[in-house]
Amino acid sequence: MSLPTAEIVCLGNELLIGVTINTNAAFIGEQLTKLGYEVRRVTSIRDDLELALEFFKEVFERKPNVIVVTGGLGPTYDDIQLEVISKATGLELVENREALKQIKKYYTKKGYGLTPERKKMALLPKTARVLDNGVGGAPGCHLIYKGMEIFCLPGVPTEMKDIFIRHIVPYLAKKNSIRMFETKFMLLNCIESQIAPYINKVKKDYPELYVKSHPAYKDKVGIVIHISGTGEESEKKVEEAKEELQKLFLENVPSIEIVPVEG
Amino acid sequence: MSLPTAEIVCLGNELLIGVTINTNAAFIGEQLTKLGYEVRRVTSIRDDLELALEFFKEVFERKPNVIVVTGGLGPTYDDIQLEVISKATGLELVENREALKQIKKYYTKKGYGLTPERKKMALLPKTARVLDNGVGGAPGCHLIYKGMEIFCLPGVPTEMKDIFIRHIVPYLAKKNSIRMFETKFMLLNCIESQIAPYINKVKKDYPELYVKSHPAYKDKVGIVIHISGTGEESEKKVEEAKEELQKLFLENVPSIEIVPVEG
Repeated sequence: MSLPTAEIVCLGNELLIGVTINTNAAFIGEQLTKLGYEVRRVTSIRDDLELALEFFKEVFERKPNVIVVTGGLGPTYDDIQLEVISKATGLELVENREALKQIKKYYTKKGYGLTPERKKMALLPKTARVLDNGVGGAPGCHLIYKGMEIFCLPGVPTEMKDIFIRHIVPYLAKKNSIRMFETKFMLLNCIESQIAPYINKVKKDYPELYVKSHPAYKDKVGIVIHISGTGEESEKKVEEAKEELQKLFLENVPSIEIVPVEG
Repeated sequence: MSLPTAEIVCLGNELLIGVTINTNAAFIGEQLTKLGYEVRRVTSIRDDLELALEFFKEVFERKPNVIVVTGGLGPTYDDIQLEVISKATGLELVENREALKQIKKYYTKKGYGLTPERKKMALLPKTARVLDNGVGGAPGCHLIYKGMEIFCLPGVPTEMKDIFIRHIVPYLAKKNSIRMFETKFMLLNCIESQIAPYINKVKKDYPELYVKSHPAYKDKVGIVIHISGTGEESEKKVEEAKEELQKLFLENVPSIEIVPVEG
């Protein structure tokens, strides 16, 4: 079964010069995968209008079903996300009354007024729907362009997560009814090249499943095996593949141990 | 001064489904930036031969000076990095004697023999130079294609770093004589939109410098200001910009505090 596709775009020089480790991409990738989307690419690009514009035109040509953009919604000169989206889609930036209301409320509560820099954050592409930010000042937004669902989110992880969980998860869960099934277990006392032939075999027996060994899974000690699939039959197939693989490991790899894995 | 450009490519479904946080990209981005390269993009792509091939053809059209690829050098079926590089460059995969020697040595020391899966890791694109792996089994390699320097590295962070530091840093340091200067300091008791007008001003006064506020810099509490530039004059200019900016902050933002930042 072929899944709807998604791309994640992260804006910000800090991601390219190594100042920030991109934890946003992992969070969004995990969420979109659970929601039944195949995340095709994660791209970090610079806060450079020309380069970013060129990039978004390429993304739009690939026509992913969903595009999640993070970073560059703030008040400084290099916060160019919505300017780029506006230029790439041809949707003019207009002051969004609901966004302005939310920004005003946020800063008033903190004891600050509305400066030009704060008002700038209320300029959204025409037709965009505001996604309120429950943690910070910059609201996100959602627009549909040539059939693609575009979600524009801030880069600060707590703000991004807040908007993603409250707005995007329920929206996409309703939109996509395909379900993903997965199972994981961990192997101890072995190295990856010892187990490779058996993974290759099971992968051939179940070409529709994703079967993969992760030698450095979330900083755990052993090798984590991850099996997943999508669609009606896949729950059963994932279980069968797991049993076959565990049997092969125990029969063929001396001293191997199979243990459960959390998280 | 315009810098030589670089792209970082990370192969592996685990990066797209959120199983792995991409720490490799931050490490490589920081190193390349210090070496005087402008990192233009970081892209994570799936272990899918067709999609990856399409992607690399795009990268080659952009002609970055340096391309660093990580992930997918191992022994399993989905370790497709060198197959993709071979197909995208037209450089046939051939058994590299030096690579095979290194692989054999590594596994012999561990008490293992040479299986077909391990021998596969010695198949390198014709003209590639082996970069020995001091930590794991899969050697990296370096090739030049249409003037672009391509470095192929494993995805396991300790192995990637070992090869990067011992082989790539000295090679690129010799190749690129441009130096980068930077300074950082931290602001306490303020929010980003309060300081935005002064950053915008200094950015206008020094258009050749990179001046940026990071509200979530390496999990620190305050807002970190990062100023950098490249070339002869930039050491002086970075210092001048820093002084102007600090003066503006102290004069205009009530209760702001400027403190040094480590790391």
